[in-house]
Order: sequence, then C-alpha cells, then structure tokens
Amino acid sequence: MGVHFECPKFPIGLLVLCLFASLIIAPSVEARIRTYNWEAKYEYKSPDCYKKLIITINGKSPGPSILARQGDTIIVNLKNSLLMENVAIHWHGIRQIGTPWSDGTEGVTQCPILPGETFTYKFDVDRPGTYLYHAHYSMQRDAGLYGSIRVSPNNGSAEPFTYDYDRSIILNDWYHKSAYEQATGLSSQNFEWVGEPESLLIQGKGRFNCSPSNADVCNSTNPECSPYVLTVVSGKTYRLRIASLTSLSALNFEIEGHNMTVVEADGHYVEPFVIKNLNIYSGETYSVLVRADQDPSRNYWAAINVITRKPETPTGLAIFNYYPNHPRKLPPTTSVPAGPLWNDTDYRLEQSRAIKAHHDYNDRPPPTTDRMIIFLNTQNTIDGYRRWSVNNVSFFFPHTPYLIALKENLTHVFDQTPPPTGYNFTNYDIYSVPENHNATNSSSIYRLQFNSTVDIILQNTNMMNRDSSDTHPWHLHGHDFWVLGYGKGKFDPFKDPKNYNLVDPIMKNTVPVHRYGWTALRFKADNPGVWAFHCHIESHFHMGMGVVFEEGVEKVGELPQSIMGCGEIKGFHRP
Amino acid sequence: MGVHFECPKFPIGLLVLCLFASLIIAPSVEARIRTYNWEAKYEYKSPDCYKKLIITINGKSPGPSILARQGDTIIVNLKNSLLMENVAIHWHGIRQIGTPWSDGTEGVTQCPILPGETFTYKFDVDRPGTYLYHAHYSMQRDAGLYGSIRVSPNNGSAEPFTYDYDRSIILNDWYHKSAYEQATGLSSQNFEWVGEPESLLIQGKGRFNCSPSNADVCNSTNPECSPYVLTVVSGKTYRLRIASLTSLSALNFEIEGHNMTVVEADGHYVEPFVIKNLNIYSGETYSVLVRADQDPSRNYWAAINVITRKPETPTGLAIFNYYPNHPRKLPPTTSVPAGPLWNDTDYRLEQSRAIKAHHDYNDRPPPTTDRMIIFLNTQNTIDGYRRWSVNNVSFFFPHTPYLIALKENLTHVFDQTPPPTGYNFTNYDIYSVPENHNATNSSSIYRLQFNSTVDIILQNTNMMNRDSSDTHPWHLHGHDFWVLGYGKGKFDPFKDPKNYNLVDPIMKNTVPVHRYGWTALRFKADNPGVWAFHCHIESHFHMGMGVVFEEGVEKVGELPQSIMGCGEIKGFHRP
Repeated sequence: MGVHFECPKFPIGLLVLCLFASLIIAPSVEARIRTYNWEAKYEYKSPDCYKKLIITINGKSPGPSILARQGDTIIVNLKNSLLMENVAIHWHGIRQIGTPWSDGTEGVTQCPILPGETFTYKFDVDRPGTYLYHAHYSMQRDAGLYGSIRVSPNNGSAEPFTYDYDRSIILNDWYHKSAYEQATGLSSQNFEWVGEPESLLIQGKGRFNCSPSNADVCNSTNPECSPYVLTVVSGKTYRLRIASLTSLSALNFEIEGHNMTVVEADGHYVEPFVIKNLNIYSGETYSVLVRADQDPSRNYWAAINVITRKPETPTGLAIFNYYPNHPRKLPPTTSVPAGPLWNDTDYRLEQSRAIKAHHDYNDRPPPTTDRMIIFLNTQNTIDGYRRWSVNNVSFFFPHTPYLIALKENLTHVFDQTPPPTGYNFTNYDIYSVPENHNATNSSSIYRLQFNSTVDIILQNTNMMNRDSSDTHPWHLHGHDFWVLGYGKGKFDPFKDPKNYNLVDPIMKNTVPVHRYGWTALRFKADNPGVWAFHCHIESHFHMGMGVVFEEGVEKVGELPQSIMGCGEIKGFHRP
Repeated sequence: MGVHFECPKFPIGLLVLCLFASLIIAPSVEARIRTYNWEAKYEYKSPDCYKKLIITINGKSPGPSILARQGDTIIVNLKNSLLMENVAIHWHGIRQIGTPWSDGTEGVTQCPILPGETFTYKFDVDRPGTYLYHAHYSMQRDAGLYGSIRVSPNNGSAEPFTYDYDRSIILNDWYHKSAYEQATGLSSQNFEWVGEPESLLIQGKGRFNCSPSNADVCNSTNPECSPYVLTVVSGKTYRLRIASLTSLSALNFEIEGHNMTVVEADGHYVEPFVIKNLNIYSGETYSVLVRADQDPSRNYWAAINVITRKPETPTGLAIFNYYPNHPRKLPPTTSVPAGPLWNDTDYRLEQSRAIKAHHDYNDRPPPTTDRMIIFLNTQNTIDGYRRWSVNNVSFFFPHTPYLIALKENLTHVFDQTPPPTGYNFTNYDIYSVPENHNATNSSSIYRLQFNSTVDIILQNTNMMNRDSSDTHPWHLHGHDFWVLGYGKGKFDPFKDPKNYNLVDPIMKNTVPVHRYGWTALRFKADNPGVWAFHCHIESHFHMGMGVVFEEGVEKVGELPQSIMGCGEIKGFHRP
C-alpha cells in the first residue's frame, strides 16, 4: 500500500497540524519504542444492551489498539485495578523472541499481577501482521479484556496486495454470567456448563433481546447498545482484519452481497482466494480485502453466525454503511444473512484446506520431522469432575510458573513424568463415547530438543454424549507452525504423512481440528522458553485441554523479578 | 461450667467410643496444637433462599468453628480455591502475640494468598472467650467467609458464671450483589452505594421474600432456605455467644419473652446485667445467659432488627425451640419482635455504658496516658470519589504490606509523613455537612512508642447529607482497649477526660461511636507489630475509614517467607 497524504488548503494552524500528521504517518526509518499506560478495571457496560461488570482497559472493551511497525518495541505498563482479581495479558501471535517472560501466560511464563500492582510487558513485534491481546488468567478473557495489535511492514517492504483503508474488527461471543461464575460452574463437582452465549459481538457491540422484565439491567435505548458501523466509500478497497476471540463459538462472517479475498492469516500472507463468507475459529486472525462495489444507495449487513455447534444465539449484526447513507439506516433486506449450515463440516474443511502460503512469501517447512506427537482430544470424568484431556492427561497449572521453575531447577513443583506422546491407536474408536477410565490430572510438560522439528497431530474424537464431536481451535504460543494437512477420521501415522502439503503450507498460530477429524502441524522448536499450546475455547482450556512445551530454557536470559511472587518464589530482594 | 459426661448402657463398641469421647472432652493439662485444613471456594448456596455464589470453607458458610482451650496453638492450612481471587483471613480478637504475621490483614501483615496456594496461619489463643474469623481482603467478608472461634478457660480456671449449654451464633446482613460488584460500585467515580441489605442472617440462615419472577435463583422450598433453630430444654441455662459480622447494619437481638444476662464482651467478663434485647455492632461478640424459663409448650422467636439506620430490611428470624416441640412449629405470636426504635440513640448509649468489667476480672487501665489522638470520622469527596476519612486523611493500602516494609526498611513504599493526630477542634462543626476541601488519600501510619499508653478519641460528625450521622464500630487489631467513656456532641479534651471511667472500664476490641457522639479508648502499645484500626463496616473501610498503628516493629522476629510475594517482595529464595 502506497501511503499518500495530501494537506488541503486550510488555515495555517491546521496546515501545520496536517504537516505534523504527515510526519507521523510517513514511514520511519528507525524502529520505535511505543509505550502504553493501561489500567484494567471492572466497569458497568452494556455491550449487547445488558448491563454487567466487564473488564475494560482505559475505559474501553475492546481495549486500545496497538498500532506498530515491524521491528518496534512495545512497552505496556499495565495497572491492575480489579480490586480482588489478579490479571495477566497474553500477546497473541507475538513470538516473544528473547522475551519469553513477556508472553503473559499466567502459570507458564509469569505469576499473576496482583490488584494495585503495575506490571511492565516489553517485547518486539518482529513481523508485520494482525495479532491480538487478551487476558490469560483463569477465564478473564470472557470478561472483556481483549484488543487488537496491528503491525505494519518495515520501511521498504511491500505487501503482496493493495487497499485503500485498513480496519480491525474483533468478533466475540458474549455471556451475561461473570467469568468467575462460569469458571466456578465448570470447576464444581455439580458441573455447570457455560451454555450457549447470550449474544454475538462485532468489535464489542451486539444486541441482546431485552425483555421488559429485566429493564433494570437491560436497556435497548442505551447509546452503548448500537451496532458497529463500518463506513465505506464506493469503489474503494478495504482491508478488514477479522479476528475471533470467542469463548466458545466458531463463527462464520459475511458481508451481504460482497465477496472477500483472503490475503493474510495469523500474520502470514495467503495465496489470495475469494470467498463469500469466512469461517473463523477463536484465536484466528485473517485479513480479507473487500471492494465496495455494490449499489451505493443503500447499506448492507455484516453478519456473524454460530457454526460447528447448533446455533442458539441470534446472528450478530453490524452495518456495512456506504457513505453518504446514514450509518443507522438499516439495510432494506428483510432477512439477515444466515451463514452456511452449522453442521456442514465438509464446507469448513474445504475452506481450511484452501488457505495456503502466498507464492512470494513461502517459507517452506523442513521436509522431515525429528519427532511426532499425537494429541488425542477427549472429554473425561476425573474424580467426579468433568474435564478435557490430551492423551488422557488433563492439564493443570503448578503454583510456580514453569518458566521460573525450569530456569531455577525447582523440579519438585510440577510432575516430572513425561506425558504420553500418543494414544492407543489400534484400539481407540474415535466415534464412540470415550471410556478413558485412566484419565488423570497432571502438570507434566513436553520437553523438546532445541532446534528440533516437531510434528503435532491433533486427533478429534467423540465427546461424552453420543454422536457429538466439537471443533477445537488450538493455539501455540511462541511459534508459528506449518499446517501440513487436515483429514477426516483417525489419523494414520504411516499413510497420512505421505499426503502432507510440504509445498506451500500456510503458517499459523491457531488452527482448528474439525469434527471427528485430524490436523497435522509442524514447527521448529527454536524459541528458548516455555510455551503453552491449548484449545482456545476458554472453558475447554479451563477444563484441562492444553499442554506445555519447553525448549532451550537454558538459553533464556535472567528472568525479571517482576514475574515472580507466587508459589515458591516469594521473598525479599533489595533492588 | 462443670463438664459432666455420662456414658449410657450401650453395646461395647459405642461404649468404647463414648469413653474415648469423654477423654477428648475432659480438660487436658497440656496446651494442644489444633490443626485445621481448610479450603476456601466459591459455591452456589441459598442462605436466604436466593441462590448466589458465596465463599465457603470446607463447603460451609459460616465456616467450621474453631473450638480450643486457652493456651492452645491453632494451625490453619488454608487453601485458596477461588480461581481468580486472592484471599486472607483475619482472626478477629486474637492478639497474635509473637505472631504479628498471622493477623491475616492483607496489605498490613501479609501479601494476599493467591488462587491455588495454601497458606499456613499459626497462632496461640492466649485468653478464653468468644472470637471470630473472617476474610480481610477487599470486601470478601460479604461473600460469606466467616466463622466462630471459641476458647475455653485453661484447666483449673473457672468462669464467673455457670450454664448448661454453650452455643455460638453469628449475626449478619446479606446482599445479593457479589462482593466485587459492591466494591466496584464504591470505587467508581459513578459512585454506587451498596444500599440496604436484602436480608438478615442468623447463623447463616435467613429469608428473602422471593417473588415468582425470580424463581430461577430464588427457591423458598430449597432445604437451605429454613430458619436457624436453637433447641432448648426447659429449665436449663444457655450461654449464647452472639457475634455480629454485618457488612453495614447495626442490629438488635432479642428472644421473645426471655431476658438475657450479659456476661462477656469481646473475650472479657462483664459485671452481669440483665437486658431484654442486645444492641450489637459489626465486629462485636457477647456472651449472654438465657434461662429456658417460659411456657415450654410452645416455641419463641429469636429476632434481629436493624438499628441506627432506618430499617429497609425485614426482621431476621430464628426459632427458639423448646424441646420436644417440633423445631419447625412456628411461635403462636402473630407479630414478630420489632426491636427498639431504630433512631433511639440514647437507648443504645445507655446500653454501651452499662457494659463494665466484672469485679473479679478487673484489669484496671493505667491512670494516665502518654499520648492522645483524636480521630474525626468524616465522609468526603476526594478527586471525584466518595471516601471516608480520619482527620481528613482517607486510608489506602500500599502494595507492600506495612509489616514487611517496616521490618525491611522499605521506606519508599508508603507515605512517611505522620498523619494528623487531631482536627481543627475550635472551628469544626460536627453537626454540619462537612466541607473538608483538603481531604487527601494517604498510606501514612501512626507510629507509637513501644509500651506507651495511648488514648484514642473517636469523634463522630455529620455525613454528606444533612441531619445524618452513622454509627461506626471501630475494631483494633492486636490489642484490647479499655472503653473509658462515651459522650454526646463534640469531645472536649480538657473537660471530658475528667469523667473517664478508670475504675471498672470493660476491655474490648470493637466499640461503636454513636451518632454525633464520641468514644474514648485507652490501650497499651505493647504488642510488637503493625496493626489495623478501622471501622468494621465493610464498605466504610473499603472507602478509607481506617488507620494503621506501628509499635516495636524492631522486636518482631524473622518474617516467614509465606507472607511475601507482592509489591517489592517478589523473588527467588531457595528454601
């Protein structure tokens, strides 16, 4: 995108301002340090008309966007003003090369940030692309602590597509129960499932169908209770950076009457392809180009619908507003976009497979792997609690974060037994309700040889109800991986690798494993640190659906004192 | 009380059990270590029929009672299973001699206990009497974390009264909003007052008037939704240990048709006096003797009513059940006890003044003081926030607890300017709405000379609304004080001390200052440590109505690592 900036003929004061603005916008040669001072606190807000306490950053949810340039250093001074709850923020998609303690994953890379305290995150944004940030402490992401990170390419490096305007839009599902009510229900022996969300949000705005009986907390005339409006100028092309941070739902995004060209996925350029609608799973980001090429005398719906689970939540709606139509003018169409069939797995599999690396930006994977680990994803009952497991091991955090425990050789703080690298491939029927009598809770982790190549196979199964299999988006911290393939049924470790795409696989940090299917990934264990890899469905990770990888921890520099203070690492240190 | 225990003629197994039980009950010569393993977690409960998440200990609220003997050592291993919230427990009335780090006051004597962690409290119970425990972190006490401590006299030391049975009853007021919703409302610039409680609880049980419209959360047929029953045998005498842990309300307790004899207050024996009903303020404990001397063919109401604030909460009711009447048989009286007039300050003042030390247990105060500090209690607006202040200083906690900061000489972590020891006595009109333009927030503390005698005058005033003055129960940690006098209007430091009761003042740890009145206290600063002194109304302390005293901190032994982990004291210590 060529930046061009014209200062119109304005009075001298405005002209100076404009020239100053053009200086800011002009590409800078040097990497910059960008400092943000943020305060996280609970505030009453009504994102979908229903008033509840949500976590804001500087008064907003979604929080302020981080807009940076490749190579910049980001400093976020985060004050926790939550009164009773701790907090931590993960910088989703940022690999934290050289700064593994800034990954913001409570229990893995840091102790939680206590109420009243200010914690400083400092990291480099080394690649252009679309990233996210969100709470990574218990289920706090559900409370509204999330936002966008947009990294522009370095001075001089072009992108393989052009557009006129750039917009970030985060999709979400929304619950009226608080995060701690949800977490408590999931952690109880009287298991209470979170249920389907009350509404869907587009860039923090949605609409719950308020009834008169809850008029005290639900006010549809509240100014907060209005749809997100994306105003476009006819003939212009828009880069929409679409991200999902849903708690539970997979979504399908579409703009009535407009095609979209997919050009970026999780910070990697995609060989462009055109779609009518986009399937997007929690933790994923996409850039799509949309040209405002339809009848400009009206507005259009932008819509999100629940897929992969039977929808019980109304379509989430925004207004795709052609200037100069009034932004509140509703589209004339009587029915809103309904999205594809929620249970059309083939359709989703097809779109997943269509995402490939752009031919000019194709960083090919190593042709072979050093290690293959198969992760069977199962729902279990352990000691009377409903849990999710990986190879029959359900994850829980130790009290001392792994990064500190490993760096300081505190081997007693977590389970040292290596977790299983596969499952009973011969006998396990992925289409049956699991028995899994031997599932256990464990804090054990996978230790990877530094610089080795690792293949991960995500293997989906039947859940504890008959004929049910959920879709799980898995997110890897600290790395991107190549997506080597998706398949149906049980992965065959002898046959299926022969069909891997080793030519132009996309790199991503989050990928779905489809119903009763498998997904194969490859990554280089080349980032010294300790990294979570987990289902990005908030309740699933809370219920144990995750693992932790360690690689090259001996190469990690001195840990900052600020990440300490929990478990075994409380004490007095004179600065 | 003479313990007598008879083993009936039962089969041999039960006989052995009974003999074993009698061994447990028989006075032991040696002090014992009593160890409790507790887990604090959120659970859905319906204490007043309305279902909400409350904090339980081992599944209960009120939590398990601590029953001990004078001289015993109590060890509580407290596991925080709250998922997102920290916790700390204060042992209310226990002076923590030699163990100031076990006082459980987050921000003063310890860092908070993080989710997943287990913290060990260890302290001696050096005096017989009726004490309490409760959360001392943000407003978590409101969430239901509280219970009783009952300490019997040492082997050989008799009490100055006799009774047949001993019962602990905690009174409380109850809100349907969560503690974090309440705290957030109070801490917001859009100030939201907590309002009057929805119901009153007697030993954790009450009744909210459920309407059909909230049938999903309010179920009056829920077995939890039943009144507390105190079963008595005609002719027997009951020691009722009545304690209040209300968030806001002062209460009046009575048992229909039965007089009560007050014999203990906050662990000190009282010169007995007879009352028809008991005024009790949050943080106070009393023992009253009640003889079951009325018509035994029926049951009677035990009732609590709100006083000092205009009641908007229905009377809290329990059943005083004469055996063998059915415990659910309602008393025949059509109207429940209504208590005294809520605004009869003279009546309450009179009862406060009637509480004097028992003539055989009268530990007289020093006849003079080394220092007098007057605490003017005012409501203020500071930087747009509604606060409470003491001498125009509104208290807030530093990030590093005072005990650690003082012991480790971290003078930069809190305000070192000594706070004011009085107010503008000549010009301040306690009957007017305060102006107090100069009120400030501060973390400064009062440093007391070790072993000195200190007088504190609590001076009440008008609040920010005209013609309004609240009653504040102030609680002192780490000490008991002599209550030298109560007065109306403005305390006169030259005249009023002449009328102090220096002959037989009661010692207490919590005392009210009545509307537009004053209360004078004296204590010896002889307990090395750092101690909070604050209004026991949860929202008032949250809004800054408290101070901190330091004395002899240089005599405090080595601090345990377990209290660290926040503020400046995070770090790695190899055990």
